[in-house]
Amino acid sequence: MAIELKIPGIREYVLDRLDAILNPKSVAVVGASRKEGKIGHTVVKNLIQGGFKGKIYPINPKADEILGLKAYPSLKDVPDEVDLAIIVVPAKITPQVIREAGEKGVKGLVVITAGFSEVGNKELEDEIVRIAREYKMPLIGPNVVGVLNANVNLNASFAQDLPYPGKIAFISQSGALVIGLIGWTHMYRVGISKIVSIGNKADVDFSELITYFAERDPETKVIAIYMEGTDAGRELVEATKRAMKAGKVVVILKGGRSKRGELATMSHTGSLAGSAKVYQAAFKQGYVIEVDNLTELYDVPLALANQPPAKNDNIIVITNGGGAGVLATDAAERYGIPLSDTPSELKKILRNFMPPFGSDKNPVDLTGQANEEDYYGAIVETAKFPGVGGIVALYCHTAITDPMKLAQKIRDAAKVANERGIPVTVSMIGGEEVERANLWLREQGVPAYPTPERAVRAMGALRQFGRYLEKIKRVS
Amino acid sequence: MAIELKIPGIREYVLDRLDAILNPKSVAVVGASRKEGKIGHTVVKNLIQGGFKGKIYPINPKADEILGLKAYPSLKDVPDEVDLAIIVVPAKITPQVIREAGEKGVKGLVVITAGFSEVGNKELEDEIVRIAREYKMPLIGPNVVGVLNANVNLNASFAQDLPYPGKIAFISQSGALVIGLIGWTHMYRVGISKIVSIGNKADVDFSELITYFAERDPETKVIAIYMEGTDAGRELVEATKRAMKAGKVVVILKGGRSKRGELATMSHTGSLAGSAKVYQAAFKQGYVIEVDNLTELYDVPLALANQPPAKNDNIIVITNGGGAGVLATDAAERYGIPLSDTPSELKKILRNFMPPFGSDKNPVDLTGQANEEDYYGAIVETAKFPGVGGIVALYCHTAITDPMKLAQKIRDAAKVANERGIPVTVSMIGGEEVERANLWLREQGVPAYPTPERAVRAMGALRQFGRYLEKIKRVS
Repeated sequence: MAIELKIPGIREYVLDRLDAILNPKSVAVVGASRKEGKIGHTVVKNLIQGGFKGKIYPINPKADEILGLKAYPSLKDVPDEVDLAIIVVPAKITPQVIREAGEKGVKGLVVITAGFSEVGNKELEDEIVRIAREYKMPLIGPNVVGVLNANVNLNASFAQDLPYPGKIAFISQSGALVIGLIGWTHMYRVGISKIVSIGNKADVDFSELITYFAERDPETKVIAIYMEGTDAGRELVEATKRAMKAGKVVVILKGGRSKRGELATMSHTGSLAGSAKVYQAAFKQGYVIEVDNLTELYDVPLALANQPPAKNDNIIVITNGGGAGVLATDAAERYGIPLSDTPSELKKILRNFMPPFGSDKNPVDLTGQANEEDYYGAIVETAKFPGVGGIVALYCHTAITDPMKLAQKIRDAAKVANERGIPVTVSMIGGEEVERANLWLREQGVPAYPTPERAVRAMGALRQFGRYLEKIKRVS
Repeated sequence: MAIELKIPGIREYVLDRLDAILNPKSVAVVGASRKEGKIGHTVVKNLIQGGFKGKIYPINPKADEILGLKAYPSLKDVPDEVDLAIIVVPAKITPQVIREAGEKGVKGLVVITAGFSEVGNKELEDEIVRIAREYKMPLIGPNVVGVLNANVNLNASFAQDLPYPGKIAFISQSGALVIGLIGWTHMYRVGISKIVSIGNKADVDFSELITYFAERDPETKVIAIYMEGTDAGRELVEATKRAMKAGKVVVILKGGRSKRGELATMSHTGSLAGSAKVYQAAFKQGYVIEVDNLTELYDVPLALANQPPAKNDNIIVITNGGGAGVLATDAAERYGIPLSDTPSELKKILRNFMPPFGSDKNPVDLTGQANEEDYYGAIVETAKFPGVGGIVALYCHTAITDPMKLAQKIRDAAKVANERGIPVTVSMIGGEEVERANLWLREQGVPAYPTPERAVRAMGALRQFGRYLEKIKRVS
């Protein structure tokens, strides 16, 4: 039986029907509850409070009404089509509920219920998968937080809030990280299209979700993943390659890269994390951008979702502080985009935006006397100069600049650069006022970070994206 | 002449007199100006607005009064002793002013004025150093932002604000980073005792400042440095060793570690950055904790200033989310504190604070059901268990916990741990509300970070501090 249940590649019906899960017209919550604190209550509440515009059907044989919505004894009693059934009943009656869903013609399932393979109950998990596949219902889970779609206000989960809306799809093998990071998306203005808590991934694995986001979801530009492990490595590589062919990039933070971390994933998700090197090779082969930590897991997609890929290695750093420039230069080498000198013709032009003691070398130091017009001029002229690949703009707070005015000029200059296909990342270093300017830039689609190193890391990823696009064009 | 001017080791009179610069009773600003926007105006304004309690003497031959203070034509006309003279006159008259300061009996000098070796004017720089040494006045600079002492409200600089007060002394070879990071210290609650912008370090170099902070400044516990390069490597190693002997640790972010970054330091501070490996070896020999980026430059001292060093490698990670635990485990290996399994007796105790499906392995997973009492119990019992070296507490936001209540309990538990010499670092992952809890913990002396990796990095540094202390005890 185990062989029969092996992830069967990337299935067309799954791609077709994932839309019913992530963009449903109607949602049933099987195991809905009147009792506050119960997950079956929270999920219904979140659907309502999230502002979902479709129909919501609480299913509970002992209730007539839940949170003001008419409740039905079973899925079969719902007098309408059901796109998505969210299942929160106890594990042992899940198979029966899934069969009812199949008979009802439900299109997709999210099984929040826990108590399956993660506690050794592999047989029960196999059973629910078998039934779901019999009826061609893609199944997310079991043992998940749920799914969220910020663009249609769908919070089909027990996470409190919808994320800040945007273009990054996030797939997480950790439920706690799903919940924890939703707050981040608002605080740091990281725009998310959809979130899928993938749980035990008994049926739908990373590969099908990636392919769906790449080929079926125009709202998603970047796919960010927290992954502990997968049994379907070949499918993963196939899916991430297909994503790159569709012009979308997959960013993965792999948990369990250390020896002990590998063990920890075993007790967490039961994943055989496998050697970090094997994953690394698979990621490279599959045009994946691998990131190193939680900060990068959002920093990097933020840039990839909002800026064009860098078409060559000629990155120019523009700064008003030498130290920030030096740190950016060190980071550029670390992140695969070592700086070269400013072309001499460009040097002459940039001299117009700095005092005599400025530096036209790369990093270009406009000095602490630089105002917003100097930044604007330097960025725009650099973007117009033939052969430039990308621009990193750095600012250390000084008394003579209004950070928000500077941010506005940087945004304007970035627009000019973007129109020419030149990406711009930014770091403004300072206090609250400066951090507000960083956040405003993010809202405007200009990835801005508190440190030069993070801005350079983001540019490194934009260049890696560019290299992958060139490579996939050559090979296909 | 050059040989005569070489940094002459660590000079006693400098150590004696640095106090007059960083803790002065009276300050003269030579080159004070009535014109807003001029540095000579800003420095006087900052001294007043910072709330400095000592005497302030503006020196200007053409003014009777500046910003409400009586002005004097020259230093010699000041009817009182002058501890610190801040010099903002043009470069070419600086030698004359310094001689006057010497004749007046001024104890120490901060030369903000630029236009010396950084623009090739080495002879003029040699001259001011020669005069300053003749009168045994330590000279900070030239070409600096100034010096700040948060504990006596001394803002003797053209940086707008005093930093958030605390126990970290910050020495920076980049003036822009001094100004930019002051905002950070407030926003992220990184407590600073004193800031010295070291500029061209023509007279006082890193080594003497480090020794002063280590041996003469009880307010400083940790010395954080942004360094591009020094000619006095031997003295640096001697100074950082002396600091470790005094129980204080030096943290250095070395700019210019990459090939191109080395060049960038040349055009920035004229430093011959030298091979990164040479510096790395010197840092290791000198018991320095080297950090990798701007984030770590404040993350690491924050922990070192507020927590005891870890006495052994047995670090226990306590989490409510498996994914965060896995990421912490990976980070632990990267930062030199690979996790071992929880001792079996401790496992039994920790079982009391988690449901049956929790994990007592290290990382200890209290699960998403953990409340503040579970965290308190788990941290306190772990701290009491013999042989534990340190505790990293991780929290992913859930709907069932009030982050501030949890933070309070973590603070209480950390106190118990600290009393037993066990350090605690924390990461709470979530939105605004959770970030407020992180900041509150920092205010309470518990280093808390937005990501697990940063909390583990901090613990790695606490362990490195512990190892250095053991080593220096053995060799001395």
